[in-house]
Amino acid sequence: MSTQQEHQLSLSPFNHYSNRVLLKTLLHHANDDGAVGLVGQRVLVGGWVKSSKEVKKPSLPLIMDNNNNDGFDETRNKDVSCVEILQSRIPLVRSIFHVLGGKGYVPRKKLEHSQHPLKAIIPQPSTVYLLLTDGSCVSSLQVVVDSSVAQPSNLLPTGTCILVEGQLVKPSSEGKHSIELKADKVLHIGTVDIDNYRLSRKRIPLDMLRDYSHFRPRTTTVATVMRIRNVLSFATHSFFNDHAFIDVQVPAITSTDSEGFSNLFKVTTLDRKAEKEKLSTVYETEGVSLEVVKAAAKEKSNQVENLKRSESNREALAAAIHDLRKTNELASHLEAREKKTIEASLKDDKVDSSEDFFSCQTYLTVSGRLHLASYACALGNVYSFGPRFQAHKTDSAKHAAEMWMVEAEMAFAQLKDSMNCANDFLKYLCKRVLENCSEDLKFIAKRIDNACIDRLQQIVSVSPEMLSYNEAIDVLRKVEDKKFETNIEWGIDLTTEHLSYLADVVYKKPVMIYNYPKEVRPFYVRLNDDGRTVAAYDLIVPKVGTIISGSQNEERLNIISSRIRELGLAREKYEWYLDLRRNGTVKHSGFTLKFDIMVLFTTGLSNVRDVIPFPRSYGKANN
Amino acid sequence: MSTQQEHQLSLSPFNHYSNRVLLKTLLHHANDDGAVGLVGQRVLVGGWVKSSKEVKKPSLPLIMDNNNNDGFDETRNKDVSCVEILQSRIPLVRSIFHVLGGKGYVPRKKLEHSQHPLKAIIPQPSTVYLLLTDGSCVSSLQVVVDSSVAQPSNLLPTGTCILVEGQLVKPSSEGKHSIELKADKVLHIGTVDIDNYRLSRKRIPLDMLRDYSHFRPRTTTVATVMRIRNVLSFATHSFFNDHAFIDVQVPAITSTDSEGFSNLFKVTTLDRKAEKEKLSTVYETEGVSLEVVKAAAKEKSNQVENLKRSESNREALAAAIHDLRKTNELASHLEAREKKTIEASLKDDKVDSSEDFFSCQTYLTVSGRLHLASYACALGNVYSFGPRFQAHKTDSAKHAAEMWMVEAEMAFAQLKDSMNCANDFLKYLCKRVLENCSEDLKFIAKRIDNACIDRLQQIVSVSPEMLSYNEAIDVLRKVEDKKFETNIEWGIDLTTEHLSYLADVVYKKPVMIYNYPKEVRPFYVRLNDDGRTVAAYDLIVPKVGTIISGSQNEERLNIISSRIRELGLAREKYEWYLDLRRNGTVKHSGFTLKFDIMVLFTTGLSNVRDVIPFPRSYGKANN
Repeated sequence: MSTQQEHQLSLSPFNHYSNRVLLKTLLHHANDDGAVGLVGQRVLVGGWVKSSKEVKKPSLPLIMDNNNNDGFDETRNKDVSCVEILQSRIPLVRSIFHVLGGKGYVPRKKLEHSQHPLKAIIPQPSTVYLLLTDGSCVSSLQVVVDSSVAQPSNLLPTGTCILVEGQLVKPSSEGKHSIELKADKVLHIGTVDIDNYRLSRKRIPLDMLRDYSHFRPRTTTVATVMRIRNVLSFATHSFFNDHAFIDVQVPAITSTDSEGFSNLFKVTTLDRKAEKEKLSTVYETEGVSLEVVKAAAKEKSNQVENLKRSESNREALAAAIHDLRKTNELASHLEAREKKTIEASLKDDKVDSSEDFFSCQTYLTVSGRLHLASYACALGNVYSFGPRFQAHKTDSAKHAAEMWMVEAEMAFAQLKDSMNCANDFLKYLCKRVLENCSEDLKFIAKRIDNACIDRLQQIVSVSPEMLSYNEAIDVLRKVEDKKFETNIEWGIDLTTEHLSYLADVVYKKPVMIYNYPKEVRPFYVRLNDDGRTVAAYDLIVPKVGTIISGSQNEERLNIISSRIRELGLAREKYEWYLDLRRNGTVKHSGFTLKFDIMVLFTTGLSNVRDVIPFPRSYGKANN
Repeated sequence: MSTQQEHQLSLSPFNHYSNRVLLKTLLHHANDDGAVGLVGQRVLVGGWVKSSKEVKKPSLPLIMDNNNNDGFDETRNKDVSCVEILQSRIPLVRSIFHVLGGKGYVPRKKLEHSQHPLKAIIPQPSTVYLLLTDGSCVSSLQVVVDSSVAQPSNLLPTGTCILVEGQLVKPSSEGKHSIELKADKVLHIGTVDIDNYRLSRKRIPLDMLRDYSHFRPRTTTVATVMRIRNVLSFATHSFFNDHAFIDVQVPAITSTDSEGFSNLFKVTTLDRKAEKEKLSTVYETEGVSLEVVKAAAKEKSNQVENLKRSESNREALAAAIHDLRKTNELASHLEAREKKTIEASLKDDKVDSSEDFFSCQTYLTVSGRLHLASYACALGNVYSFGPRFQAHKTDSAKHAAEMWMVEAEMAFAQLKDSMNCANDFLKYLCKRVLENCSEDLKFIAKRIDNACIDRLQQIVSVSPEMLSYNEAIDVLRKVEDKKFETNIEWGIDLTTEHLSYLADVVYKKPVMIYNYPKEVRPFYVRLNDDGRTVAAYDLIVPKVGTIISGSQNEERLNIISSRIRELGLAREKYEWYLDLRRNGTVKHSGFTLKFDIMVLFTTGLSNVRDVIPFPRSYGKANN
């Protein structure tokens, strides 16, 4: 299937600011019309070698290396270029060819090492077949390079970058390619350090690849994932643009703890080394004066001993003893003070942030929904798409420390409005991937997960099962064929295990659960009339679990105030948010889509680290 | 001008997941066809009161409050509703009206406080005229509410939120409005705490508004800026999508210092309090054992004194003296060790990050271009749009600590390709704003900067003046009418002052300066053949200065290695980046557009903090 977007691309290289033609453009053209109109065209293509083979051409037995006795196999090209043989042997012929600029000319330097024509080991002419990929699509282009055009050993390693010019031709042999490129100019070769290039080996497991995140996108799997990710990203912006939402970039740095959680990254410019030095200075300053006094006390003690021994002068002794006592007192006093100062300085309960960049403690944001709400309460419908951060010390396959989230917030909207919007958004994303990524999805279906296309189609065509939390608890209570790790009782936060069971086993389709107990949702979610539950929901899809979490948020000042009190949150941090209820408050609702989990769902992979360009997780931030 | 996008919206509320109709939809319809087809329609609208007036209806003199002697002015509505007067006075009539559901019925509770009909202070009937805005456009809708529908005092304050239902009618008086809403149901009122609501005052300067970033978008200026920002944001994604770039979300948290700068924010989960406590524990543990030994020494010292005095047992004395000496030695040893431990612990030069979340020191990224380059070297053309961070202690009007950047990187592309792409991108952004934000731009031209539209049109129609750095230096050297703060000599980094002079005074149009001295650009920019300059450029526009900075980046391993050496950078941090040169290296180039500066350019404002939803700058991170 070729989409509208793909048709917009033409073979003209102007589209992408270099002279080369994208392989996607070329190969999709070729597939659409069986390469009609392409054969004979000259093009410039660039990319990285995915696999290669060299087919030797027979040389004259006369100059065969003795070691080279492996003979020709059936696939080898039997053509012998007389010109090449002549060139290699007879200097005059070579010179003539050089002057005439003959097409078969082999550069002089390649032949220079042959001191004596009859004894020399002449490189055997060959043809190199390269499968080239440029990241624009799954397919690769076969590029044929004669050894007279470029040194085969430089081209063959996997990962070599080449920029070549040549003519599009019908493939010499029947195969899966409908077109190939006969290269006659190699404009660039980026060689490979074979011994150290991790991608030289075939089929490296994804978890090993994670340590080489800078090379990962050169694998077909990761490149495919990133192309799908890109389509989902643009679809996100398109959906909200089509529905008149305004894109509001909420801040990554915040002094507000949106969820009341503790797994926060701190942002600071304070220098830990400088802080330590400050403590050390305190210690040294106090320490020095104490030592002086102690030395004095020791001297005075000796003086007293001497006076005692001499028994000469009782008055002098009494004065010296008095002096010693005073000095000792001072020493004790100083010692105590030193101890106190250091201890105070070490123990100080309040960490001083006044000297920090923002003059206050700041964090990386966990959620942008509070900030977004303030813009919704002025602009109506708003959304944000950016990184959010959680310092969970976990190696869960569904969690990374930095994840991109799509957050939407709508004024004058209630729980059901948010649910409708979340559903439409999810359907839209799946539809766009189905329409725009057919080649990538086929690759995934073949190599990773053959159910991936069906899953996307189900989202588009089927509505989620709607269950209140109470109903979900009832359903789970009746489950007999499975023992859950967390017992089912009213009030628990449903775990991944429960949710997956509902979506994967019970309903075998997306499930939407709403009206959660207030204890398991953040303070800002709207309290329902029952006083026990809040207007929150989760949209759970098969395979990955919760993909969207939404809620109607509390617009009533008195109720949100008492929720903050109940939870013991630092009210002063939320004054700005409460202000929105004091002045022109409005019902509003919204949701968060975990974008990386959406990519995981679409691609059928199992670890979120494999769908994030540079994943950050506990103990890992490679670059 | 009405754009395609605006036409897509219909009066159906389905588009935006609530029953209300966006004012943009309604008012643009009204302007397009002179309100034909709208008059008589029932709609639900919601928004915030921008301004209001109450027009009293005359009451019977009989019940006038004595204080109410200000008389009627000419603008007041002279209609007297007999029904209301009768209702207010005669209980029976009221009851009859209630039963019949008469349209003029005034709810009972409003009248209940009038104990005696003749003495009561009856609220004087009135009509409230509200200018309502919902953030979807500059224009507001006039909403007319009779005091019988809602208590006027609740509706009148600026900032009050209302959701009202009613009928669209031709305005009662000729004016700028082509349609107004006669409300007959008020479904929601979000009142205002007049004394504390900062936006109650009119025309608050933008710099004062910054302290109330959560309310700012309710002002017409900031709402307009945010709508334009939104159009620029979607245009960014559209441009790159149209040109087959892949969106790669580069990480905010990084262990690589992309620019080799020092103004970095650190990211940590280490607890400063806990660190201090650790030091304090060392101190205490050591301190305590030392004290025990000291106490023992003192006791032994007394023992020795006693033995000396009694002179009874020389052997016992010798043993006691030996014991005392050992104890004293131990005390000295412990004292020395304690001092050493604390000092070491305080002074430790290497700040230990092994216990930090990522087991290494991490920062907030200054630039995503290195990370992006690694994806370009696999996928071809890539871009990223996200927050970047610099901890400059400055209050410059062009700088914030967190700014959004658009970064693009293209493999197989050289300096000129990057320049062409940057130019096209800038033109595209300006074109999209001109097409999609006509009403917003008119508001800006009227209120902020009347040259804003001309400036955008110039970018679309005129190509930038191209100058090498050498040529720019020559031009600036010849300037006689202006003395620059930094003297013009080869090798300086051109300052804002120089660049603005070129764009605003000399050429009066965008200027592109390229081939900067290598010393003033980052290590990764490609060295030119002259060995002195690098393939970097800036695109400078009138009014705001540099808006795009681009470069071709160094693909040659040996040269980039020696640049890293020259600059004394920590090579081990860049090994992953150098890997890209070791394996399949390719010419690549790209650029960075400062998105917030682009919004500043478009809106004609002068401080970047006014175009960022929640600005963060030195000493300021409000929420």
